[in-house]
Amino acid sequence: MFTKFKQHLDQHFPEVSHQLVLIAVSGGLDSMVLANLFKEAGYTFAIAHCNFKLRANESDADEQFVVQWAQRHHIPIHVKKFDTKQYATSHKLNTQLAARELRYKWFSSLVQEHSYSAVLTAHHADDALETFLINLSRGTGLDGLTGIPEKNGAIVRPLLPFSRLELKSYAEENKLEWREDSSNATINYLRNRIRHTIVPNLKMMHPEFLHNFLRTQTYLRQNASLVASVIEKSKEELFEKDGNVITISIPELRKLHPFELYVHELFHPYGFSAPSVLDLLSSMSGKQLFSDAFRLLKDREKLILKSRDFSEVSQVLWDNGIDAITLTNWALTMETVMGKGETSSNCIYLDKETLKFPLLIRKWEKGDYFYPTGMQGKKKLSKFFKDEKRTLFEKEQQWLLCSGKDIVWVIGLRADRRFLASTTSSSVCMIKAQSLS
Amino acid sequence: MFTKFKQHLDQHFPEVSHQLVLIAVSGGLDSMVLANLFKEAGYTFAIAHCNFKLRANESDADEQFVVQWAQRHHIPIHVKKFDTKQYATSHKLNTQLAARELRYKWFSSLVQEHSYSAVLTAHHADDALETFLINLSRGTGLDGLTGIPEKNGAIVRPLLPFSRLELKSYAEENKLEWREDSSNATINYLRNRIRHTIVPNLKMMHPEFLHNFLRTQTYLRQNASLVASVIEKSKEELFEKDGNVITISIPELRKLHPFELYVHELFHPYGFSAPSVLDLLSSMSGKQLFSDAFRLLKDREKLILKSRDFSEVSQVLWDNGIDAITLTNWALTMETVMGKGETSSNCIYLDKETLKFPLLIRKWEKGDYFYPTGMQGKKKLSKFFKDEKRTLFEKEQQWLLCSGKDIVWVIGLRADRRFLASTTSSSVCMIKAQSLS
Repeated sequence: MFTKFKQHLDQHFPEVSHQLVLIAVSGGLDSMVLANLFKEAGYTFAIAHCNFKLRANESDADEQFVVQWAQRHHIPIHVKKFDTKQYATSHKLNTQLAARELRYKWFSSLVQEHSYSAVLTAHHADDALETFLINLSRGTGLDGLTGIPEKNGAIVRPLLPFSRLELKSYAEENKLEWREDSSNATINYLRNRIRHTIVPNLKMMHPEFLHNFLRTQTYLRQNASLVASVIEKSKEELFEKDGNVITISIPELRKLHPFELYVHELFHPYGFSAPSVLDLLSSMSGKQLFSDAFRLLKDREKLILKSRDFSEVSQVLWDNGIDAITLTNWALTMETVMGKGETSSNCIYLDKETLKFPLLIRKWEKGDYFYPTGMQGKKKLSKFFKDEKRTLFEKEQQWLLCSGKDIVWVIGLRADRRFLASTTSSSVCMIKAQSLS
Repeated sequence: MFTKFKQHLDQHFPEVSHQLVLIAVSGGLDSMVLANLFKEAGYTFAIAHCNFKLRANESDADEQFVVQWAQRHHIPIHVKKFDTKQYATSHKLNTQLAARELRYKWFSSLVQEHSYSAVLTAHHADDALETFLINLSRGTGLDGLTGIPEKNGAIVRPLLPFSRLELKSYAEENKLEWREDSSNATINYLRNRIRHTIVPNLKMMHPEFLHNFLRTQTYLRQNASLVASVIEKSKEELFEKDGNVITISIPELRKLHPFELYVHELFHPYGFSAPSVLDLLSSMSGKQLFSDAFRLLKDREKLILKSRDFSEVSQVLWDNGIDAITLTNWALTMETVMGKGETSSNCIYLDKETLKFPLLIRKWEKGDYFYPTGMQGKKKLSKFFKDEKRTLFEKEQQWLLCSGKDIVWVIGLRADRRFLASTTSSSVCMIKAQSLS
C-alpha cells in the first residue's frame, strides 16, 4: 500500500512532498494510517486533533493517545477542545454538523496562522460509498450522489482511492496502534449495517467495484458542475435585485426547461422546495410561502423574494420532504421512520397516509377545535387552554400543526387522535419539536 | 394493489382508460399482473407476445400459454416469432440487445398499423433499482443512473412505482397463473444475486427506500436532460459540417468547462472515449484515432472527424473502458473479470497490470516477434506463420494486439506468454474475438 500511496500522491498532489501540510488526526484507524504513511515517506507535516468532548473520558483518552504519538515521533501538534453540544444548540445544528463546522473553521484558522499549504483528511473509498448509499436511501439529487472531491480548496483527501481493507492491512502489517471509537457501534448504526451487510455484496458484483464507483462519482461531479454553472447563469439573468428585494418574472421562469429542476435549484438555496413553489405558481396572486429566513410572494406575473420578518408571520407551509423547519420559538424536524414510538408532548408519530401535504403551521383562529389524545370526543381549543390553565396570550402565541383545516398537533402540548400512527400504519412520520425559548 | 394502480393510472395516464392500448406480455409474473390489472379495470387492450425462440420448447410453451389466456378472456393478441440469434449475428449485437431491438421495432409497426395509443410494458421499481446497481458496479455516467422513464414516446410503464413484492402479492391473492422463465436462474445470475442479497438490505435502510430511489432517478433524469441540451447547443456551435467532414476548433473546444465532460459527451457518440481524445489533443499534429465507424484526426489547431474507410486502416487504438471494437473481419470484446479462465485461440485472459493502454491493434511489421504460448523462448512472426503453414497473404491480413511495442496476441491464433493472467493477478481482463468472415 505504501508504494501505491506514494505514487498516487506524487502524481496527483506533488506539492505535498516538499511543503508543510497539516493532517487531521482523530486517533482512529484511518487518520493514524495517513499520519504513518506520511512519516514513512519522510514528509514534513503537523497534526491537528479536535476534542469534541462528546464521549467524556473517552474523548480525553483519544486526545492523550494522539498527543503521545506526536511527541514520540517529534511531530508538531495542535489540540483544541470544543464545547460541541453548546455550539450545536446555539447554532440550531445537529451534533454531527456542529462538529463539522467547528473542525473546518479551526483548520482554516490554523492554515492562516501557520501557512500550511493544505489540510489532509483520511476519507477513503468506503466512506464515499457509504455516504452515497445513505443519501440514496433517503432520496437525493445529483449533489447527494457526487460525494467528496479529492481536493476542495485547501482540503486534500489523498486516501480516497483506497479501500478500508487496504488501510486495515497496512495498519496490521506495520503494527500500528489506533483508538476504536465506541460511538461507531451506536451513533453510526446505519453506517455499520451498510458496511457489513451491503457493501461486501456490492463489491462481489464486480472485481473493480470501488474503482468504478469512484470513477462514476467523478463523472457525476462534472455533471453537477455543469448544471451549477448553467443555473448560476440563468439566476443572474432572472433574479432582478433591488436592495433586499428580488423580483422574478414568472413568464421568463416558465421558459426554462426542465422546469422542475430549475425551480428546485433556484429556490432551494432560499429554503423553498420545488413542489411548494410549483404550488405557489398555480395559486392566486397574493399567496406567499415562508422558509426559515425568506418569504416568497406571488404578485400577479412576478415572484417577490425577500428576507423574512418574523413578527408578521402567521402561517408557514411545511411540505413533505423538508426535514426541518424553524418557527419563532420552536425547531421542528420531520422524519419517516420504520414504526411508531411513544407519543409525548414534544414528539409525535403520525400516519402519513392521513396527512395532506403541505402541512400548514398557523396560530389560533376563532372556532378552532381538535380531538385531544387522552380525552373522548372533540374539544374547542379555547376550552382546552382554559382547562390547562393557560393564558389568552399563550393561546395567541401557540403554534398549531394542521392538515388542511384539521388540527394535527397543538405543538409541544397535545396531539390530535385522528392522525396518530397505529401499529398497522404502513407509513409513519415522526415529528419532534425542540423549544428554542 | 388494484386501487393504488388504478389511482396511479387515472392520475398519470388518464388517456389509457378510454383508448385502445397494446400490452407487451411475455407470460412472466410482471406482464401477467399488468394484463390482469387491465382486465380487472375493464379497459380495452390488446396483447403482443414475442417468441424470441431462445429457449426452444420453453419459448413455444410460453407463447401457447399467453395465446390461451388471451383466447379465454377474448383479448385480441398479436404473436410473432423471431430468429433472434441470426439477427444478433448479422447486426453484431448481443442476444439481449438484439431481442430488444426486434421487440421495439415490431411494437412500433403494430402501433402504426392498428392505431394503438400506447404500448405498455411491465417494468417495476425493483427492475429499475437492479439496473441502477448493475450500471453502478461497472462504472457509469449520469445516463446509466437515470433509468427508464415512466413514459417515453409511445412506451408507457405504469407499474414503475410498484415493487416486485406488490406484484407477487396481487398475483397470489388473485390466483393468477404465469410462466417462470428458466433463463432467469442462469442468464441473469448477477441480477438474481442483487435481488436476493443486496436489495433486501438496501430496503431495510429506509422504510421508503424504493420510493425515494425513484424520486432520485427523476431528479437525475432532469439533470441529464439539462446537460444534454447544453451539450447539444455547444455541439451546434462547435462542429462545423462540410459534407461528410466535421471540423472542430481545438482552442474553442478548450474553452469549455468542465472540459472532460464536454469531451466525453461530444465524442462518445462517435465511439471515442474521453481519455483517448484527451491523449490525441496533447499529441503531435497528424495523429489519428479510429472507432468502429469514424476517424478523428488532429490537424494542427483543428480536429477533423469523418466516416471511416476501412480499406486504408492499418492501426486501431483500443482504450481501457471501451468494451468492444470491430475490425474488418473480427469483433473483439474486453471485459474485466473476477479471475482467469482457460485461454483458447479465440479467448484470452490477460493480467491487466502488465498492459499499457491504449492497446494498439495493427498489421504485421518486418522484424515482429513474440513469445508464443505452448513454446519456449521467442519466435519471429514470419517463422511462426511458416511453421503454422499460413500464407504470406494471411500474414498480411493478420491483426496483432499490442501493448506498446510488444505483441500480446496474434488475434484468433496464439497468445503471447508474457501478458497472460496468472492465479495471483489482481486484475484480469478477458478479451474475446469473434470471426465475422
